[in-house]
Amino acid sequence: PKIFNTIICFIKDKIRNKQDMRKLIHSIKVGVSLVLVSFLYLLNPLYERVGDNAMWAIMTVVVVFEFFAGATVRKGLNRGMGTILGGSLGCLAAALAQKVGGIGDSIIVSISVFIFGVAATYFRMIPSIKKKYDYGAMIFLLTFNLVVVSGIRAEKVLELARERLLTIGMGFAVCVFISLLVFPTWASDELHDSIASNFLHLATSIEGCLDEYFKAVEEKENQPTSSISNCKSVLNSKSQDESLANFANWEPWHGKFGLYHPWDKYLKIGDLLRELSAAILSLKDCLRSPKQPSSTMRQSIRQPCEAVGVSLAWTLKELGENIKEMKRVQQADMIAPKLKSMSLELSSVISSSKLEQLENVDGLAIASFIF
Amino acid sequence: PKIFNTIICFIKDKIRNKQDMRKLIHSIKVGVSLVLVSFLYLLNPLYERVGDNAMWAIMTVVVVFEFFAGATVRKGLNRGMGTILGGSLGCLAAALAQKVGGIGDSIIVSISVFIFGVAATYFRMIPSIKKKYDYGAMIFLLTFNLVVVSGIRAEKVLELARERLLTIGMGFAVCVFISLLVFPTWASDELHDSIASNFLHLATSIEGCLDEYFKAVEEKENQPTSSISNCKSVLNSKSQDESLANFANWEPWHGKFGLYHPWDKYLKIGDLLRELSAAILSLKDCLRSPKQPSSTMRQSIRQPCEAVGVSLAWTLKELGENIKEMKRVQQADMIAPKLKSMSLELSSVISSSKLEQLENVDGLAIASFIF
Repeated sequence: PKIFNTIICFIKDKIRNKQDMRKLIHSIKVGVSLVLVSFLYLLNPLYERVGDNAMWAIMTVVVVFEFFAGATVRKGLNRGMGTILGGSLGCLAAALAQKVGGIGDSIIVSISVFIFGVAATYFRMIPSIKKKYDYGAMIFLLTFNLVVVSGIRAEKVLELARERLLTIGMGFAVCVFISLLVFPTWASDELHDSIASNFLHLATSIEGCLDEYFKAVEEKENQPTSSISNCKSVLNSKSQDESLANFANWEPWHGKFGLYHPWDKYLKIGDLLRELSAAILSLKDCLRSPKQPSSTMRQSIRQPCEAVGVSLAWTLKELGENIKEMKRVQQADMIAPKLKSMSLELSSVISSSKLEQLENVDGLAIASFIF
Repeated sequence: PKIFNTIICFIKDKIRNKQDMRKLIHSIKVGVSLVLVSFLYLLNPLYERVGDNAMWAIMTVVVVFEFFAGATVRKGLNRGMGTILGGSLGCLAAALAQKVGGIGDSIIVSISVFIFGVAATYFRMIPSIKKKYDYGAMIFLLTFNLVVVSGIRAEKVLELARERLLTIGMGFAVCVFISLLVFPTWASDELHDSIASNFLHLATSIEGCLDEYFKAVEEKENQPTSSISNCKSVLNSKSQDESLANFANWEPWHGKFGLYHPWDKYLKIGDLLRELSAAILSLKDCLRSPKQPSSTMRQSIRQPCEAVGVSLAWTLKELGENIKEMKRVQQADMIAPKLKSMSLELSSVISSSKLEQLENVDGLAIASFIF
C-alpha cells in the first residue's frame, strides 16, 4: 500500500507537467505494445503459427518504437526495407555458395561477408544517407550476414526468412497502430511550436534589452539571466530542429499539416532566428560593458530606440503567432516599409549610440527575407 | 577488369582525402570483424561449441561497431550490462511465473512485461540517462522480454542465457580488439583538434574582418563567404562537441590523454568560442551596413583598431596552438594585461567607431576566463 501511494503521487506529479505527461503516455504505449506482441508467445493458437520467430516481433517493437511518430515510422520502414533487401541478397549469396560446395562454400561466404560489410558500412557514413537510411543500412548488413552465414547450416533458409519477415511486419504493425492512432506525439507539431515560440523568445529578449538599457542604474542587477538563456537555447537549437524536420518528413498527413509540408523552410527560418539570437546576445554583451554612456545620455536617445525595439518585438511576435496559426500575416505589406522608415529615423541619432545599428541591421535582414 | 579499375580508382581517390581515408579504414575494420565472427558459424569445431547462438555474436558486431573507439566501447558495455541485468531479472520473473503455473503464469508474465516496459522506457527518456545509458536500457528491455516470455516455452532458460551472453561477449571482444588496436579512431583526438582549429578559424575571421573594413571601397566584394561559413560552423558545433566529449569519456588511456582527462572543460571552452563567433558574426553584419562611416574616417581609427585586432587574433592562435600541443601558454601572464591596456587605449577613440567595443568585450571575457 505504501509503495502504491508513492507511485500514485509520482504519477500525479507528472501529470501536472505537460512534458512529463507526454513521456508517461509514451511509456505506457510502449508497455501496451509489448504486451500485445507477447501474446504471440503466450497464447497457444498464435504460438503454433509463428513459433520461436515471435521473438522478432518483440525485438521489432523494442527497437522501433520511438518517442515521435515520425521516428517510429522511419525506423520501421528502414527495418522492413533493410530486412527484405538483406534477406534476398543473402539468399542469393547462400545459394551461390551452396552450388560451389565443399570448402569453396565457406570461402565464398567469407568474401561476400567482407565485401558487403565494407560497402554497407561505407555507405552508412555518407552524410545524406546517414540522415535517412542509417538504420536501414545497419539492418541490411545484419540480415545479410545472418542469412548468408546460416544458409550453410539451415536447409530452409527461404522459409525462415519469410517467417521472420512476417513477424517483423506484425511487430511493426503494432508499433504503427499504437504510435499513430493512440495519443500520437507528432514531431511536426513539436517543430512547428518550437519555431513559433522561438520568435516569441527573441521578441521578449529584445524588450528585455531595451528595458535594461534605459532603466535607472541602481535597479540594473535583476532579471538578466532568463532572457539570455532563452537566446542561448535558440542559438543551440539547430541539431534538434534538424532531427525534428527529419522525423516530420516521415509523418503521414495529419491535423493541419499536408503530406508535402515544406519542412525545409522551417529549417531556413530557424537558421535566421539563430543569427538574430546571436546578434541579440552580442548586443547584450555590449550593454554590459562599463564603457556605455551615462544614463542621461541614454535618455536622449530613448524615444527612437524604444520605438524601433518595440516595433521589432511586435513584428517578431506577430510573425510567431501567424506561423503558429498558419495564417498569412495581415499587414504583411506594411511591416517591411515600416521597419525601413524606422531605420532611417534611427540613422539620424546613430552616431551617439552603438546599440540600434545592430538591432536594425538584423531586423531588416530578417524582415526583408521573410517577405 | 573494368569494374575493378573503377573500384581501384575510387579507392585511390579516397586515399588522398584524409577524412575519406578514415571512413574507408573503418569500413574495412568492420568487414574484418564480421568475417572473424562468421568463423563461429563457418568452422565446424567452433560451431559445435556455440551452435545457433553464434548469431548473437554477428548481431553484436553489426550493432556495436561504431566509427569512434569510445562509441564502440560505450555501446558494447551498455549492451553487456543491459543483457546481464535484463537476463537475470527475466529469469527471476520467469521462475516466479512457473511457480504459480496455469493461467496465472501468463498473467504474471504479461503484467511484468507491461511494468518493466513502462519503467524502462520512461527511464530511457530522462536526459542524463539518455546521454549515457540509452542503448543499455533498450537492450535491458529487449533481453528481459525475450527471457521472460520464452521462459514459458523453453526449459533451459538459464543455459540459453549463459550461451547468448558468451557469444555476445565474443562479438564485443572482437569489436574492441579491432576498434582499439588496429588504426583506432579516437573521439578524443577529434574533439581536441576541432577545439584547437576552432581557435584558428576565429582568429582568421577577425583578421578577415579588419582587412575588409579598412580596405578601399572598390575591392570590397571578395572573400567574405569562407570566413563567415567558418564562424557559422563554429556556432553550430555544440551538439557535435557534446557527442564527441561523451564518447571521449569512454575511451581508455591512450596517447597524450590520461584516463581522467577533463573533457567537460573542452565543452566550456567550446561554449565560449561559440559566443565569440556569435559576436564576430554580428560584427560582420554591422560592417556590411550602408551606414558605416566613410573610408577616410575609417583610416583615422585604423591604427589602434588593427593593433587590437591583430593582438586578439594572435592570442587566439597562440591559445589554439598551445591547446593543440597541450603546453602551458608561455606568456600567459602577459596576455591578459596586454589586452586590458589595448582596451583602455581603444576607449579613447571609441566614440567614433562601433566596432572595437564589441571585439574587446568578448576578447576580455575569453581571455580572463582561460587564465
